[in-house]
Amino acid sequence: MRVLGIDPGLTRCGLGVVEGEVGRPLSLIASGVVRTATSDSLGERLVTIESAVTAWIDAHEPDAVAVERVFAQHNVTTVMGTAQAAGVAIAAATRSGRPVAVHTPSEVKAAVTGHGRADKAQVTAMVMRLLRMTERPLTADAADALALAICHVWRGAAQRRLEQAVAQVTAQATARAGRVG
Amino acid sequence: MRVLGIDPGLTRCGLGVVEGEVGRPLSLIASGVVRTATSDSLGERLVTIESAVTAWIDAHEPDAVAVERVFAQHNVTTVMGTAQAAGVAIAAATRSGRPVAVHTPSEVKAAVTGHGRADKAQVTAMVMRLLRMTERPLTADAADALALAICHVWRGAAQRRLEQAVAQVTAQATARAGRVG
Repeated sequence: MRVLGIDPGLTRCGLGVVEGEVGRPLSLIASGVVRTATSDSLGERLVTIESAVTAWIDAHEPDAVAVERVFAQHNVTTVMGTAQAAGVAIAAATRSGRPVAVHTPSEVKAAVTGHGRADKAQVTAMVMRLLRMTERPLTADAADALALAICHVWRGAAQRRLEQAVAQVTAQATARAGRVG
Repeated sequence: MRVLGIDPGLTRCGLGVVEGEVGRPLSLIASGVVRTATSDSLGERLVTIESAVTAWIDAHEPDAVAVERVFAQHNVTTVMGTAQAAGVAIAAATRSGRPVAVHTPSEVKAAVTGHGRADKAQVTAMVMRLLRMTERPLTADAADALALAICHVWRGAAQRRLEQAVAQVTAQATARAGRVG
């Protein structure tokens, strides 16, 4: 599956596309950052982010989009802008018909590094190793977006296996019920 | 001037259109609420709000859009959804080419009732009186959206007078400088 990860932010919004399945090597498809000028109006900045998300979806055709969950207890001076950027990104992905998942920063860190309190350097190092990158991602936001996409490839697969197992057990139970009846 | 006021919210988003100029009676053009189901995904809810804002702009062709500013210190359980709803509303208004203004709740209360700490009942009562409404707005969100629009008609007019005064003084200074030179 191919996943677009988005690390939302009003000034810098990280974008990363990863392709993979559990148990197979992951592939880096694209990585980048959208920047907006603080001199632009809030509306112009949000439209820039929305357009970039739509352009990345059109260009890379991901099967799903994963966005980082924003928490109110984060840096309060920027959290409103981050939430608004996340809002337009989620709306743009939904309009494109893609399923959208939201993962917390600790879920992403745990998926990529094995522990939920890993620092930015550890996340970047693991992202580079998993995607066999020889150059660092452009910014920490770009690395976080790739980490989100990797997290979603793996969590999405676990979710699908769980759903398949539940469906199988349900089918067996239905079959047994049919024999008894 | 005709203004669309938006009181953003994920569950209920108030919308109100008011027409007027300073010193003349205001007119109510439209008032309503967009509701989204908590059973819908976050993306579906944001797209519903975005589509409603676009539909209201197309239907009522406002000269400007005024949105309530969301603060991080508000109710933390709903503030992220409110910020995301505000984000998609601001982006939709900007895409339509309308100027977007953001007013704080206390600016709106001060403009409509004369004091920044007025309660919801006082705001609703003043909105009804200013717009000569015989029926209460549908919800408090709908009343707040109308209050935002009224606030913007009046503040926008003050802003334009200020800009005209500055332009006039600048023109006079330029003319004087021309005569001296």
